[in-house]
Amino acid sequence: MNNKWQDTLESAVSRIRDFDHKAAEQAQQHSDSLTKPPGSLGKLEAIACQLAGISGQLWPDMTRKTVIVMAGDHGVCEEGVSAFPPAVTPQMVLNFLNGGAAVNVLARQAGADVICVDIGVNADLEHPKLVSRKVVRGTANMAKGPAMTREQALQAIAAGIELVDEQAAAGVRVFATGEMGIGNTTASSAIASVLTGLSPEQSVGRGTGINDEARARKIDVVKRSIAVNNPDPTDPIDVLAKVGGAEIAGLVGVIIGAAANGCPVVIDGFISSAAALVASRITEKTKPYMLSSHLSHEQGHIKLLAAIGLSPMIQLEMRLGEGTGAVLSFHFIDAALKLMQEMATFESAGVSKG
Amino acid sequence: MNNKWQDTLESAVSRIRDFDHKAAEQAQQHSDSLTKPPGSLGKLEAIACQLAGISGQLWPDMTRKTVIVMAGDHGVCEEGVSAFPPAVTPQMVLNFLNGGAAVNVLARQAGADVICVDIGVNADLEHPKLVSRKVVRGTANMAKGPAMTREQALQAIAAGIELVDEQAAAGVRVFATGEMGIGNTTASSAIASVLTGLSPEQSVGRGTGINDEARARKIDVVKRSIAVNNPDPTDPIDVLAKVGGAEIAGLVGVIIGAAANGCPVVIDGFISSAAALVASRITEKTKPYMLSSHLSHEQGHIKLLAAIGLSPMIQLEMRLGEGTGAVLSFHFIDAALKLMQEMATFESAGVSKG
Repeated sequence: MNNKWQDTLESAVSRIRDFDHKAAEQAQQHSDSLTKPPGSLGKLEAIACQLAGISGQLWPDMTRKTVIVMAGDHGVCEEGVSAFPPAVTPQMVLNFLNGGAAVNVLARQAGADVICVDIGVNADLEHPKLVSRKVVRGTANMAKGPAMTREQALQAIAAGIELVDEQAAAGVRVFATGEMGIGNTTASSAIASVLTGLSPEQSVGRGTGINDEARARKIDVVKRSIAVNNPDPTDPIDVLAKVGGAEIAGLVGVIIGAAANGCPVVIDGFISSAAALVASRITEKTKPYMLSSHLSHEQGHIKLLAAIGLSPMIQLEMRLGEGTGAVLSFHFIDAALKLMQEMATFESAGVSKG
Repeated sequence: MNNKWQDTLESAVSRIRDFDHKAAEQAQQHSDSLTKPPGSLGKLEAIACQLAGISGQLWPDMTRKTVIVMAGDHGVCEEGVSAFPPAVTPQMVLNFLNGGAAVNVLARQAGADVICVDIGVNADLEHPKLVSRKVVRGTANMAKGPAMTREQALQAIAAGIELVDEQAAAGVRVFATGEMGIGNTTASSAIASVLTGLSPEQSVGRGTGINDEARARKIDVVKRSIAVNNPDPTDPIDVLAKVGGAEIAGLVGVIIGAAANGCPVVIDGFISSAAALVASRITEKTKPYMLSSHLSHEQGHIKLLAAIGLSPMIQLEMRLGEGTGAVLSFHFIDAALKLMQEMATFESAGVSKG
C-alpha cells in the first residue's frame, strides 16, 4: 500500500492545534459587556466564542469564505435507490461551474467562493474552473462489495486536505462542505448506521424525493451493503471505503484540512454530516473546528448531528445538499463577529445593568 | 370616544388585498423548473411563493427593508417582574438612535434601516432621529387596573399604521417588528394567556433573565392582571388595552399597516408574536402578509407562533427582542428571491429530470 496518502492524513492531524479556551473566555467576557442581557444572543455568542477559541483572536478576520463542493458517483445507483439518474452528477457539476446551481446563488449572496471538485465522477469532465482530483470513476456497487479500496479512500481524504492547504495559504479563512453525487444519501445512511448503531430504517430517508416503495428498497440495499462488507465500526476509514463514497471521503479531508489550518468549517446537511462523523472518529480534535448549519429535511440528520455533538441553527426544511445550508449560515458567522465588534458596551452607552 | 383612531384602523383593514394565489402558483411552477429536486429548497420556496402572492409579481423588488422598533414602559414593573430596571428602556432607545444596539448591527449587515419610535416611554426623550408618537408615559400597573384605555390602544395602533403608510410611500417594501420595553414579556404573556387559553405557568418565561423566584412572582402578576381586568378574549383591542402595552399596540399597527400597503412583515420574537396574534384576531387578512423568523428561547413562544400558524426558520436560542431575529431573516428573504431569479432551469443547464 502507498503510504503517501496516509502520511498526508497523519501530518494534517498532527497540525491541529488545541482549542484556545482562554481566548474563548475573553470573547465571552467581552460579549457580557455589550448592551444586552448576558447570553441573550444565544448561539451567536457561542459562535463568536468558538471563532475566538479557533483563531486565538477576539474577533478574527473571517471575511474570505469558500464552499468546497466534492462530486462523485455511486455504483449502488444500479440498485434503483435514487429519484434521479446518475447522469445528473456530471450535469450538475457543469451547472456548478457555470454558476447556475442553488449553491452558486447563495454563495454569491454571502460573498463566498464555490470550488467544484471532480473526485469521483463517472464521466470525463472538462471546464476551465473544474478542480480535477479524480480518485475513482464512480464507486463500485457497495451492495455487492466494497465501494472503494482503503487506498482510494485515503487518496480522496488527502486530496481534500491538500486543497484546503492551498486555499488557506491563499487567504481563505472559513470553509463549508458541499457535495453532489446521485446515490450519496444511500452511502451516508450506511455510514450513519455503522458508526452510530442507528438501524437502516432510522437512517434511510427520501433523498431527492423517492416514494415509499423505493425507500423500502433503499433500506434493503443499506442492510445488504453492511452485511456484505462487514465494515469495522472502530475503523472509520474502513467504513468510509466500504460503504462510503469518494466525495464523502474528500469532505472528510476538507474537514481535517480546515482544522489543520486553524479554520472553522461549516457542516452542511446529511451527507456532509456523515463526513463530519467520520472525521470526528478519525480524530476528536476536529470537533471544535466544526460549526453546524441547518437541520435538513432528510430523516436521520438530527441523530447524525447529535452523534457529533452539533445542534443546527437553521430549519428551512431543505434537502438539496450542495452546501446550500452551510452557505446560508455564513450570514450568521458574519453577524456574530459584527456584534462583537460593533455593539456598544453598557459603559459606553450609559445603560444600567440588571 | 374619539373615533379618529378607530377610523384609521378600519380604513387600513379595508385596504388589505386578498392574497394572489395565482401569482403564488406561478412562482411555484417557476421554482419547479429550477435545477433542484422539486421542493428541496423547503421554506425558501415557500417564502418566494408567499412574496409572489403578496405582491402579485413573480420576483418582486424587496430591496428596501426597515425594522420598526417601538419602545414603551410598563407600570407593572413596580411588581418586580424584570431583571432590569425601567430606566433601561429610555437608555436603550438612545442606544438604538446612536446605532449601538444589536438590532442596529444586524440591520446594517442586512442593508436595512432601523426606525425607533417612542410610543410610550416614561421619560422625555430628544434625539434628531427619534420618531415621537407618545401615547402614554408608561402604561398603568395592569396588576391593579387596565394598562391603557381603549382609546390609547387604538391611538398606538393608528400611529403604527400611519408610520408604515409613510415608509411604504417612501419606497420601503419589507417591514420587521422590533420592540424595547422593560416588563413587556409580562404583558405579552398576559395577552398570550387570554387569547390562546395557555395558563400563565405556560406563557410566562424568564424574559431578560429572571430566576425561579422572580418567575413565580411574574406568573402571579399575570394571573392577578387577568383577574382584575377580566379582558374579553373575543375583543382583541380590549385585551391589548387592559393587559398589553403601548409598543405592542404600535406593532399591531405596523403589522396591519404593512398588510394594508401590500408589504410582507417579518415577526420577531415573543413580544412581536403577541402583537401578531392580536393583529390576526383583529383581522385574519393580515396572516398571509406575516413571515415568521426565529424561535426565541422565551418559554411560550412556540405555542404563540402555532396559535398564529407560523413556523420559525431560525433557532439561535436568542431572547433579546429589538427585532434581532426578524432582521437576521432578511438574509433568507433575499436568498429566496435570488434563487428564483438566478438559478438555471433544467432546460437551460441541460440537466435530466427525475
